[in-house]
Amino acid sequence: MSLPESMEVNVLHGVNDMRMESRPVPRPADGEVLIRVASVGICGSDVHYYEHGRIADFVVEQPLVLGHEASGTIVAVGAGVPPERVGERVALEPGVPCRACRACKEGRYNLCPDVRFFATPPIDGTFAEYVTLAADFAHPVPDSLSDHAAALIEPLSVGVWACQKAGVAAGSAVLITGAGPIGLVTVQVARALGATSITVTDVSAERLELAGRYGAHHLVDVSGGSGEIGDASQDAFIECSGAPSTIGTGFAAVRPAGTVVLVGMGADELTIPVGLLQSRELWVTGSFRYANTYPTAIALASGGLVDLDSLVTGTFGLARAEEALRSTRQPGTIKSMVLPGGDPVPGGAPGARHNR
Amino acid sequence: MSLPESMEVNVLHGVNDMRMESRPVPRPADGEVLIRVASVGICGSDVHYYEHGRIADFVVEQPLVLGHEASGTIVAVGAGVPPERVGERVALEPGVPCRACRACKEGRYNLCPDVRFFATPPIDGTFAEYVTLAADFAHPVPDSLSDHAAALIEPLSVGVWACQKAGVAAGSAVLITGAGPIGLVTVQVARALGATSITVTDVSAERLELAGRYGAHHLVDVSGGSGEIGDASQDAFIECSGAPSTIGTGFAAVRPAGTVVLVGMGADELTIPVGLLQSRELWVTGSFRYANTYPTAIALASGGLVDLDSLVTGTFGLARAEEALRSTRQPGTIKSMVLPGGDPVPGGAPGARHNR
Amino acid sequence: MSLPESMEVNVLHGVNDMRMESRPVPRPADGEVLIRVASVGICGSDVHYYEHGRIADFVVEQPLVLGHEASGTIVAVGAGVPPERVGERVALEPGVPCRACRACKEGRYNLCPDVRFFATPPIDGTFAEYVTLAADFAHPVPDSLSDHAAALIEPLSVGVWACQKAGVAAGSAVLITGAGPIGLVTVQVARALGATSITVTDVSAERLELAGRYGAHHLVDVSGGSGEIGDASQDAFIECSGAPSTIGTGFAAVRPAGTVVLVGMGADELTIPVGLLQSRELWVTGSFRYANTYPTAIALASGGLVDLDSLVTGTFGLARAEEALRSTRQPGTIKSMVLPGGDPVPGGAPGARHNR
Amino acid sequence: MSLPESMEVNVLHGVNDMRMESRPVPRPADGEVLIRVASVGICGSDVHYYEHGRIADFVVEQPLVLGHEASGTIVAVGAGVPPERVGERVALEPGVPCRACRACKEGRYNLCPDVRFFATPPIDGTFAEYVTLAADFAHPVPDSLSDHAAALIEPLSVGVWACQKAGVAAGSAVLITGAGPIGLVTVQVARALGATSITVTDVSAERLELAGRYGAHHLVDVSGGSGEIGDASQDAFIECSGAPSTIGTGFAAVRPAGTVVLVGMGADELTIPVGLLQSRELWVTGSFRYANTYPTAIALASGGLVDLDSLVTGTFGLARAEEALRSTRQPGTIKSMVLPGGDPVPGGAPGARHNR
Repeated sequence: MSLPESMEVNVLHGVNDMRMESRPVPRPADGEVLIRVASVGICGSDVHYYEHGRIADFVVEQPLVLGHEASGTIVAVGAGVPPERVGERVALEPGVPCRACRACKEGRYNLCPDVRFFATPPIDGTFAEYVTLAADFAHPVPDSLSDHAAALIEPLSVGVWACQKAGVAAGSAVLITGAGPIGLVTVQVARALGATSITVTDVSAERLELAGRYGAHHLVDVSGGSGEIGDASQDAFIECSGAPSTIGTGFAAVRPAGTVVLVGMGADELTIPVGLLQSRELWVTGSFRYANTYPTAIALASGGLVDLDSLVTGTFGLARAEEALRSTRQPGTIKSMVLPGGDPVPGGAPGARHNR
Repeated sequence: MSLPESMEVNVLHGVNDMRMESRPVPRPADGEVLIRVASVGICGSDVHYYEHGRIADFVVEQPLVLGHEASGTIVAVGAGVPPERVGERVALEPGVPCRACRACKEGRYNLCPDVRFFATPPIDGTFAEYVTLAADFAHPVPDSLSDHAAALIEPLSVGVWACQKAGVAAGSAVLITGAGPIGLVTVQVARALGATSITVTDVSAERLELAGRYGAHHLVDVSGGSGEIGDASQDAFIECSGAPSTIGTGFAAVRPAGTVVLVGMGADELTIPVGLLQSRELWVTGSFRYANTYPTAIALASGGLVDLDSLVTGTFGLARAEEALRSTRQPGTIKSMVLPGGDPVPGGAPGARHNR
Repeated sequence: MSLPESMEVNVLHGVNDMRMESRPVPRPADGEVLIRVASVGICGSDVHYYEHGRIADFVVEQPLVLGHEASGTIVAVGAGVPPERVGERVALEPGVPCRACRACKEGRYNLCPDVRFFATPPIDGTFAEYVTLAADFAHPVPDSLSDHAAALIEPLSVGVWACQKAGVAAGSAVLITGAGPIGLVTVQVARALGATSITVTDVSAERLELAGRYGAHHLVDVSGGSGEIGDASQDAFIECSGAPSTIGTGFAAVRPAGTVVLVGMGADELTIPVGLLQSRELWVTGSFRYANTYPTAIALASGGLVDLDSLVTGTFGLARAEEALRSTRQPGTIKSMVLPGGDPVPGGAPGARHNR
Repeated sequence: MSLPESMEVNVLHGVNDMRMESRPVPRPADGEVLIRVASVGICGSDVHYYEHGRIADFVVEQPLVLGHEASGTIVAVGAGVPPERVGERVALEPGVPCRACRACKEGRYNLCPDVRFFATPPIDGTFAEYVTLAADFAHPVPDSLSDHAAALIEPLSVGVWACQKAGVAAGSAVLITGAGPIGLVTVQVARALGATSITVTDVSAERLELAGRYGAHHLVDVSGGSGEIGDASQDAFIECSGAPSTIGTGFAAVRPAGTVVLVGMGADELTIPVGLLQSRELWVTGSFRYANTYPTAIALASGGLVDLDSLVTGTFGLARAEEALRSTRQPGTIKSMVLPGGDPVPGGAPGARHNR
């Protein structure tokens, strides 16, 4: 197959300023593959860069291509990569670490200070027809996975990592606060890991209803206050809402020696009930992306233990990426997908609205 | 409720010699409960004592009541136990440890040298209308669990413990050799824990078919040899057959840093491929009963993540316990149950043959 | 040996109100031993009860015997305890749990909600000539350990537990904030565990100097501010001061995937740098007493890997317990010891002042 | 500094056939450093290749440079490596993995199937004046470490890894069978980790005496049989002799839930007491090289917690490498060192014999 010389890319030039551009198709370096991008999920961080031009210390100082939840097909390989991989459908793990620092060599490559992560300035992301990626970060997916599902292996990985850090296991009772996309995949992963009591809180009845459909056993509407969970009743508390108001009830709900994983917080500082932390010897941590989760997440999705396709509530052509970003603010949206490669390999929710 | 003075017990007096006897109903000591026994599963160890009068260093030197996989209802409580527990349906955890030795205080009470375990000489078991038990080893079960299922929490615990020690987790590939009762519950637990590739080997096509029904993905008939598993393809190898011939293939099938758990071995010595153990840094252990698994096992069974009732292939009145023991040698038998309390709370397999 | 009928006890009747009383010598129940108390260390909690009459929800509502860091000699045994134990010198582990709850059975008996702990209302402590204790919580000590050292196995256990939870290991870099008695034993334990960089902060030059003598490699005087530790340079941060001002610098000093153990905090709430917790995936926990540490602590002290005797800066007869409590407010005091049994088996610091 | 064009190398051409050769000085590739080799310890594997031409499946099919326990000084750097590293004294970690496979990304790079390890065919080793190495596998050492000690960080790493896998911790009782170089460093590491009871067995009284000098508490001469260790008395058993006769006594000596680490075995198969493995739930593993141990080992050696220099019993110029290999068969030899760079930075045992 001969590759085109140039490709279409949708580039963020500033707050609320996205522009389609033509760029040369990149060439894979040694150990890399070139991927034709099929589907890209919109993440909250994409929206944040689009609306604010920065996240914490990461500032968009030059045009940036957004998008990092992606799937596609390998169309070319660099030196040292088996040519047979051309044609392989893959889920793209978006952060390639240095492979030489302590964190990398100890198996915690998500903590590598030199990681190059799609759509984190100054690294361009996947709102593009083609991208290159380290060959071992392009994970093969079976044909049973749709392009959308393959793209959503990324947020699923966040849920897998959170559940792993929380120690979710057979018979676990888990509290998940927040039923957004991350909360919903975390519910599914907890279920797949054998949790037998999953409690979800949210302020939206609609999202809670979804959480129930994905396997949550107890739904608590906290729109009117902090809700009732039960003191010391949970093995783990996984915070997926970013709302500090969840902390008090959440910590109190965890049994002695239980775990708290803060996935969704956005603040720099947080006040925690340290007396309780000490007297119950809770273990508290945060989660930062994930490491070594893609094979697990792909196995769960391929094996039918989680359902990603039904998270998709709208699809958009590459030129309409801006619309896709804005759609996340509309009620009823769970996951909006951008399709740089045109129509994706199907499997998606039949009711999803497509916007060319 | 007034309790009777005496009860019926079926006692092993020697090899192949079981006799019904009348004994006084025991009284619960401080911290104990008195349980009317509903259902008792037959375990291979019961059969072994019946046929051989000993297991390793445990010798039947005086009449012994067999049976340790039991469920029932609390009918009286000793001092210090809340009277409200009378009427509670329970699964009986059969081994009560000393609670004071190092193993006990470190949470490994299954390794307590002074554990008193039902039907392990000289401790009488549950082929009796009534037994006493430490209150905290009588685990409440919901009404959704049948008496049979509550009794089979015991072998299910063996499977839970084996999977925990093997580190079975989301996306795991697990090899289970042997599709007897323990193998079959282990398949179900592995499935409930998110394993996405479960390979089972056995010499019986019928048992393999059952393993498939319980969730195994790959079935390997080894009646003609050692079968083909795939080198270094498994995260864990759980040996449930007791056949030394599984060891070579099993070890070779485990990936670097994977685990081997020997559940079913009966030999004192075993030859292992130590070169492979070293070059792959495999972790090998055995499992001895279980600790702290009952709540997990009950949650899995109540939550519908495992199915215990369908393991029951025959039921027998207390007077027919000997027949129940012998039935395990018949083809097609998975689990035979003895019913000291008459007809059990239902839920069992509709096709199970009952023998009053 | 015939035991006396009555004994002397020093009892807290209210804030700043201690009184000597005569009480019957208790008799050991089944599974208990009776101990003649030799030496009792003063803990900050004793001082707090003496000065304030409460700690958090624990309120002194009736006369209370203080003291829980104790050593002594077994003088009688209850039923079920080998009579040969009479004469044994022991370190008293002060909290006896229920042995039946989940925490107990999982090996985390320090989290037992029904633990009975010396000198925690309403349980009387060890400012008494005799006390009873569960036999397995009276840990034998070799003759090489002085009575003071045997008593100080208790605070040493706090240090062992903190270091275990912090994951201190060979080659670790550890930050310990606060060089009071707990900080000083934690320095010693970290050293014994192979830590090769121990940094200690305190506001007192004198205490820092002591920390240096006990093996700290880097001493940081924070009397003028927060000091300089180095960003992300530590494997673990063990907070032993109770001062919230340590948190910011402390968290910042921990490397990605490192641990924070809050031993010394007294507040109910604490503001933590959650952004850092998340982006570095720090693990944070508190420590609450200890479990299964006595054998380890005794082995460390007997083996000469830690030095407890030199922590003793003053000794007091039982009648002078109030003076001992007050002495902890004097500069230069590290550990004051109360001697209910008269002169202790020696080994203590030669320079310690004794006050009959 | 201008580098020479050619260098001296001592090459194994066949069994018992070593030849000095002149080769071009290699040039560091991207991410590599060029090191002038100072000191190289002789390992049993070097001797095995020299005497037999193979180890298991690794066959010397073309001329091979032996030596992999090495120290030296960086004299040039490849692209991407800070030029300031020139002049740095380093310990050479000899195995560079692929950095992309599952084992590598999970932090177990010692299990990488594509590792390139010095002196393992067909990769040349360090009996050479200069070698190149991945920059992150050249670990800086402080000036307090001699060249010999820096070279012996390699065997020390084996001991660190073994103790880590064995879970050696404060207060541990450890059995180490075999007091050769690996046994002796393992004794030292166990001591540094806080083990308070170290038992060493060997057939040589002289080696046992050395083990005692390095910190072993109990020495058992097994020249006349299997010796007496005490049943179930040890937390861990670390096998460093390669003698199958140690297995029975060793396993029996381990307490319930204890660990067995097989470091020194050479056989392909081994008979183990599986009944004991099961009833005590022992964990058994092997060790294969090490991962992420160099920083720890360097910290231990620099901090004076282990003593490597005194292991050196003889030194040899590069041309005398063959003599060095043969010297390991002489009684009294612990470690023979080859000096490709002439006289090393001192610190070595004053009594060591040097052979130019």
